[in-house]
Amino acid sequence: LIGDMLRQEGFDLVLLQEVWSERDYSDLKAKLGGCYPFSHYFRSGVIGSGLCVFSRFPILDTLLYQYSLNGYPYMLQHGDWFCGKSVGLVVLAWGSRPLCPCSCQLHAEYCREKDAYLPHRLVQAWELAQFIRHTSKAADVVLLGGDLNMHPEDVGIRLLRGWTGLRDAFAEATRFEGCEDGCTLIPNNCFTVKTELLPFPLGIRIDYILYKAVSSFTVKCEELKTTTGTAPGMDIPFSDHEAVMATLHIRRQGQAADGNLGTAEPTLVDVVTEARTEVGVGLRAAQRQRYSTGRMAVLALLLLLLQATLGTLAGLAAGQPFPKLSFSLLAFFAIGILLLATGLHLFHTIEVKMLQGTEEQLRMALRTLQEHP
Amino acid sequence: LIGDMLRQEGFDLVLLQEVWSERDYSDLKAKLGGCYPFSHYFRSGVIGSGLCVFSRFPILDTLLYQYSLNGYPYMLQHGDWFCGKSVGLVVLAWGSRPLCPCSCQLHAEYCREKDAYLPHRLVQAWELAQFIRHTSKAADVVLLGGDLNMHPEDVGIRLLRGWTGLRDAFAEATRFEGCEDGCTLIPNNCFTVKTELLPFPLGIRIDYILYKAVSSFTVKCEELKTTTGTAPGMDIPFSDHEAVMATLHIRRQGQAADGNLGTAEPTLVDVVTEARTEVGVGLRAAQRQRYSTGRMAVLALLLLLLQATLGTLAGLAAGQPFPKLSFSLLAFFAIGILLLATGLHLFHTIEVKMLQGTEEQLRMALRTLQEHP
Repeated sequence: LIGDMLRQEGFDLVLLQEVWSERDYSDLKAKLGGCYPFSHYFRSGVIGSGLCVFSRFPILDTLLYQYSLNGYPYMLQHGDWFCGKSVGLVVLAWGSRPLCPCSCQLHAEYCREKDAYLPHRLVQAWELAQFIRHTSKAADVVLLGGDLNMHPEDVGIRLLRGWTGLRDAFAEATRFEGCEDGCTLIPNNCFTVKTELLPFPLGIRIDYILYKAVSSFTVKCEELKTTTGTAPGMDIPFSDHEAVMATLHIRRQGQAADGNLGTAEPTLVDVVTEARTEVGVGLRAAQRQRYSTGRMAVLALLLLLLQATLGTLAGLAAGQPFPKLSFSLLAFFAIGILLLATGLHLFHTIEVKMLQGTEEQLRMALRTLQEHP
Repeated sequence: LIGDMLRQEGFDLVLLQEVWSERDYSDLKAKLGGCYPFSHYFRSGVIGSGLCVFSRFPILDTLLYQYSLNGYPYMLQHGDWFCGKSVGLVVLAWGSRPLCPCSCQLHAEYCREKDAYLPHRLVQAWELAQFIRHTSKAADVVLLGGDLNMHPEDVGIRLLRGWTGLRDAFAEATRFEGCEDGCTLIPNNCFTVKTELLPFPLGIRIDYILYKAVSSFTVKCEELKTTTGTAPGMDIPFSDHEAVMATLHIRRQGQAADGNLGTAEPTLVDVVTEARTEVGVGLRAAQRQRYSTGRMAVLALLLLLLQATLGTLAGLAAGQPFPKLSFSLLAFFAIGILLLATGLHLFHTIEVKMLQGTEEQLRMALRTLQEHP
């Protein structure tokens, strides 16, 4: 259904996420070969983030950046860790100049009231913003499309937009057609979980097309559309998220665009400060978990040592009745806990390092904003 | 000793690797505050790669890229996996323009004859090359310094140099002073393993300073020096590797430098083909390991199911003597194998994905080289 629609619409560029199976990608590639002769599939993590790009323009080069944090491997029911969420950049031969659109996905939000993944998503938003800043220095136009898993007013999206100067196609569009408020996760899509959307009767907007002109170009979003639940003439939708489609008008004209930072500095200082606070909260939680898993590993080791001592004593006092079965079971239990706790301790050590690194970078960003406004 | 030497020499820029402990970094920072007022420490992995930068110029921004493959967590005796090897980029305010030097380290080579880590190091060399290409598009001058763990003639370094156009300061230097052939791992350093250097009586050169001018600048290496074993007036060396020190003359002058690719295309095609072959060898090895760990997990699961069935039968036929101890031990053994094999299977799945991704990118690079020379 998605392939039919893409073939029919004949876009210049398609950025897809969550194409989990490479088989699906190959099928799409075969189906779309006529109108989108160039495509790329980004591989990452165990399952992959399912990022792929179909383009009418030749793909010259690609770059994948995997976020350093992406949830927890033991949260099997969420599974984000296994996807290796990332941002994929492609360089397209667009006329005589390169165009570098990015496709990306961030960690999902499973509970808005008590969002345990907020610090990870903020690290990802920051890494995404830094990736875009550093790779787009020679670009004329920056395009970012994807499932950011953030509401428009969330600190992560304000950080991303403020730090990169990217503009939101929905807010800038001259014409809009689609779901109310541009929502992309709506209650009357049969694949969405209705209870999660109860506080948001219209749905939420978490899929974005962002853009900016860097050098002497201007970009204007002439039209933005979303799909609206079911596919035309069918009773099932294309996907659990609504697709976002933008018509962008790119002109070589006008003044050189404004510098690196798009929004007014004082607001940006507030946003970076807010993000730093949230990352700090995550850092302290990660430090607590690192401590408690480390303690558990030490306790398991002590239990093993105690057992070894008792076992030796029992061996010396031969002839005494000795509960072999429960003794061995306990030893195996202790070994299991030791291995598990050590693994978790290593994982939370990495988490602490990355959160510390991001907090320091945010501190550096604040200093730069204040010293070189 | 390192701090004293750096303070005495008064360089513009210092790129360090393997500063494992943050405490050591803090000590260096305190000691060097006077001559290098700006510094940054990059955090990654469990231990960290120990990358840090000391600079006379203000640091405006930083970016860390962790390689997607870096050895195996179960190779505890090598431990590279725990370091999260990476490349760190800093943006310096260099006069009125930014200068972006990178500090990096690649996976170590433990056995040259049977180098199991070659595919991983090639993936890293390729990711490093891509990272430099994509982040240096607006730079005037690119500088890369680090422990690349590759001999000058190795395919990885030829790929990195060919694909980025970086030049080797040792080969270009007008004057050279230091260890013969510019070696940085030499037998008469008391920290090196003498047996590993037996085939190389002079030592090997695995630490590099690479550079290129991108826009209308020229860079010339006027002098290159290495330390030579022991520190002056002492009987111990600064480190197990010799330090590399370059005096670079950067001038705004001359023609715009040559394009993206530095060496002649036909050679580069050969290098990329060679790298692709090696990555392909690694891919097939990883696929075999993924298969065998998956099979082991399935066998462990079957053993557990068999035990559960036997246990139920034994429970039905009560009164029979039943070997509880060996039965429980076997069950715990099977659970242990199941968990371990599943973990390894996931790890090798990620390895296969990343090797496939790199192989495809190298194929795309070959096509680009052939179509757009």
